[in-house]
Amino acid sequence: MSAVSNPYGPNPSDYLSNVSKFQIIDSTLREGEQFANSFFTLDMKVQIAKALSDFGVDYIEVTSPVASEQAKTEVETICKLGLKSKILTHIRCHMHDASVAVETGVDGVNIFIGTSNFLRQHSHGKDMSYITKSAIEVIEFVKSKGLEVRFSTEDSFRSDIVDLLNIYTTVDKIGVQRIGIADTVGGANPRQVYELIRTVKSVVSCDIETHFHNDTGCAIANAYTALEAGAKFIDTCVLGIGERNGIVPLGGFMARMVVATPEYVKSKYNLKKIRDLENLVADIVSVNIPFNNPITGFCAFTHKAGIHAKAILANPSTYEILNPEDFGLSRYIHFANRLTGWNAIKSRVEQLNLTLTDNQIKEITSKIKQIGDIRPLNIDDVDSIIKNFHATVNNLELPEPEITLEGEISRKRQRTD
Amino acid sequence: MSAVSNPYGPNPSDYLSNVSKFQIIDSTLREGEQFANSFFTLDMKVQIAKALSDFGVDYIEVTSPVASEQAKTEVETICKLGLKSKILTHIRCHMHDASVAVETGVDGVNIFIGTSNFLRQHSHGKDMSYITKSAIEVIEFVKSKGLEVRFSTEDSFRSDIVDLLNIYTTVDKIGVQRIGIADTVGGANPRQVYELIRTVKSVVSCDIETHFHNDTGCAIANAYTALEAGAKFIDTCVLGIGERNGIVPLGGFMARMVVATPEYVKSKYNLKKIRDLENLVADIVSVNIPFNNPITGFCAFTHKAGIHAKAILANPSTYEILNPEDFGLSRYIHFANRLTGWNAIKSRVEQLNLTLTDNQIKEITSKIKQIGDIRPLNIDDVDSIIKNFHATVNNLELPEPEITLEGEISRKRQRTD
Repeated sequence: MSAVSNPYGPNPSDYLSNVSKFQIIDSTLREGEQFANSFFTLDMKVQIAKALSDFGVDYIEVTSPVASEQAKTEVETICKLGLKSKILTHIRCHMHDASVAVETGVDGVNIFIGTSNFLRQHSHGKDMSYITKSAIEVIEFVKSKGLEVRFSTEDSFRSDIVDLLNIYTTVDKIGVQRIGIADTVGGANPRQVYELIRTVKSVVSCDIETHFHNDTGCAIANAYTALEAGAKFIDTCVLGIGERNGIVPLGGFMARMVVATPEYVKSKYNLKKIRDLENLVADIVSVNIPFNNPITGFCAFTHKAGIHAKAILANPSTYEILNPEDFGLSRYIHFANRLTGWNAIKSRVEQLNLTLTDNQIKEITSKIKQIGDIRPLNIDDVDSIIKNFHATVNNLELPEPEITLEGEISRKRQRTD
Repeated sequence: MSAVSNPYGPNPSDYLSNVSKFQIIDSTLREGEQFANSFFTLDMKVQIAKALSDFGVDYIEVTSPVASEQAKTEVETICKLGLKSKILTHIRCHMHDASVAVETGVDGVNIFIGTSNFLRQHSHGKDMSYITKSAIEVIEFVKSKGLEVRFSTEDSFRSDIVDLLNIYTTVDKIGVQRIGIADTVGGANPRQVYELIRTVKSVVSCDIETHFHNDTGCAIANAYTALEAGAKFIDTCVLGIGERNGIVPLGGFMARMVVATPEYVKSKYNLKKIRDLENLVADIVSVNIPFNNPITGFCAFTHKAGIHAKAILANPSTYEILNPEDFGLSRYIHFANRLTGWNAIKSRVEQLNLTLTDNQIKEITSKIKQIGDIRPLNIDDVDSIIKNFHATVNNLELPEPEITLEGEISRKRQRTD
C-alpha cells in the first residue's frame, strides 16, 4: 500500500465508502426526548432546533405528532421556523400515525417497526408478512404526499438476515429515499456492522441510514464503520442523549470524522459551535458535560506527563490528533505536578517573561517535583517557586514568602503526626 | 452462516480471536496518574490497587519509579501488598530506568519508545537503529533479572509499518512476553486496528498488548476489534482516566465484553464491584461519573418511551443487551412523563397494589400524558393521579388534593400571563 498523508483517512479499499460524504440526522428532539432527564418545552425545542441548524446538521428528527397534543404543535412550529436543516418526524408503521405526520409540514417521515423475534413477540406481536404489508401501505401513502420516506427496522442486528433483506428490497423497489439499520439495544460491534451494511448495500439502490445505541461504548466506532461499508446517514444526538445511555453523540462523532476527512467536515459543519450547542442541551436536561467528553471535556486538550509536554511544546501533532483551534478551544500544558518535566517549566518561565538558563530551570523542576511528591500543586505554587528562584539568583527582593521543600516536609509532618 | 445463539458473540471466521480469552492490564495507577485531576497519595494508590485486584484485573501497571522519589516508594509498597494481580511498571527504553525498575519488586517491566516520525523528531530525537539497539540492551537486562518484559511502540498507527515489523520481530526473537501496540493520539479506527494487529500477529510468536486513547470515541471498539485480530491484553483505566480524555474505560470495556462472552467475563471478573471501583476513583480524582457512562451512568437501565416500557415489562431482553443484575444494579421504567404508555402505568398501578381495569388505566394514562405536556411530572404526581382516580371510581375518600388537567392549565396561564 502506498504511503498516504493521513493515516486515519478513508481506507482506499472501501469502494462504497461514504466517509467523506456522510450526512447527519440529528435526533436530539426525538431520541433525545426519550432521555430520562428530558422535559422539553416548545421554547426549548425551538432553541435546540435553531442551534442544530446553525451548526449545520442535514436533518432534524422530531418526536411523532401522535405522542401527545403538544408534540403535534411542536412539530408544526419547528417546521415553520424556516431552518436550513430539513425536518423529519419518526413514526410507528401505522396509517394513523402517517396520516397525522404528513399534515404537520415535515420534509420527510421516518417509519420504524421492530423485526427481531424479541420485538415481534413482546412489542407489536406481528409477523413478517403483516409487517411487509403495513410497510408498503404506509410508504405509498407518505410518498403520495410528496414527502421523503425512510423505512427502518428496530433491533436489526437481532433480526433474521433473510427477513431483513426481504423487507429492505421490497421497500427499496417502492422507492424509499433511505432504509434504516438500527442497533436498538447497543450491542453491535464494528466488524459486525460492516458486514451487515455491506450485505444490505449490495441488494438496495436507496441510501442507508444508521442508528447506534451506546450501551457497550461502540456507537461512534459503529457509525464510522457503517460509513466505510456504504451507509450515508448517521443518527446523532447532542451529547448522545436518548433511551438508557443514548446513541452516537454529535460532538464525539465530529471528533471521529474531522480526523478522517478534515476538509469535508470543516467546510460543512460549524465546529466552533459544538461547545455552545452541548452547553445548551446540557443545561436544558440538567446534566454536566462528562469530564471525558470528546472535544469539550475539561481535559480533552490537557497534557500532563513531562514527556508529553516536551513533545507538544515542540509540535502539537506529536500527542494531538485533534486541533483545539478547530473547535474554538485551546490546549493546556499541565505543569504544576510531580510528573512535570523541565520543558514544561521552561515554557512557563517564558510565559512569565523571566530569563533563566536551562540548568537553572532543571534545578527548579527538580524542586517542583519534590514538592509535588508531597502535596497537590497549583499554578500559583509553581509560579511562586519560579519567581522566588529568579529573584534569588538575580539578588532581587523576594516578592512573597518562599515555598520551600523543607517547609513542605515540616507541614506534612505536622499533618500526619 | 448458521444461526448462532448470541448474535454479538465472537465471529467464527476470526481464527486468531482472543475475544473469549483476553486479559486486562489496568493502568489507572500509571496512565490514570497522567489525568489532569489526579494527585494520588500512597494511601490512595494502595486503595485503588486493592480494589483493582479484588475486581480481578490480571495486571496493574504503575508509574515509573524514576518519575520521582515518592513514585519509587509507591511501586515498592504496592509490590509488597501481595495482591492477586501482577504488578508492572512502565518505563522509558533507558538502561537507567530499567536498573531502578528491576529493584522495586515488580513482576514485569513495560518498556516503551516512540517510533512515529513525529515522536522520533520532536520527542527523543533517535533513529530506528538507535531504538533497536537500546531495545535489545534494555530487554536483555530485564530478562536477566527473571522478570516479564513488554516492549511497545508509542504512536504505532503513525509509525512506518516496515519499522514496526522490524522492531517487533527483533524483540520477539529476544523473547519478550508481549509487544505493545499503542494508539497514543486516539485517532485509530476499528478496521485499521484489525489490519495492523493481524499483520503484526502474523510475524511474532509473543502475545500482543494494546493501548487505545479515546480522543475520537473509539477506544472500546478498537480494543474489541484488536482482540478479534489476535491481540490478547487490553490496557484499561477506571473511568478511562488518562492523558487528555483518557483511554479504554474498564467499566465500558466490561459492558462490551460481557455481551460478547458472558460466561468468561462473569466467571473471571467481579462485575458487581464495578460501581464501587468507579466511585472510589471518581472521588479520588474529583470527577462525577458521566451521566452516560456505560453500566453505572444514572440512566443506563432507564426506559422511558411507552413502546420501550411496554416491551421491557414483557421481556427485558427486548430493549436491554446488558442485564443490570449482573452488575448489582436494577432497571427503572420511567413512567412519569408525556411519552409514557398504558403498560408502564399499569405496572405502576400494580406496584401500588391497586385494582383497575385496562380501560380505566388507559383513561388515567391519557390524563397523565396531557398533564405531562404542560409540565415535568414526578413520581408523586403520577401516584397522586392514580390514587385519586382509584378513590373516585371506588367512592373512597380522597387521600389528598387532586391534580387535575384544568388546574394545571390554569397554573400554566398564571405563569405565562
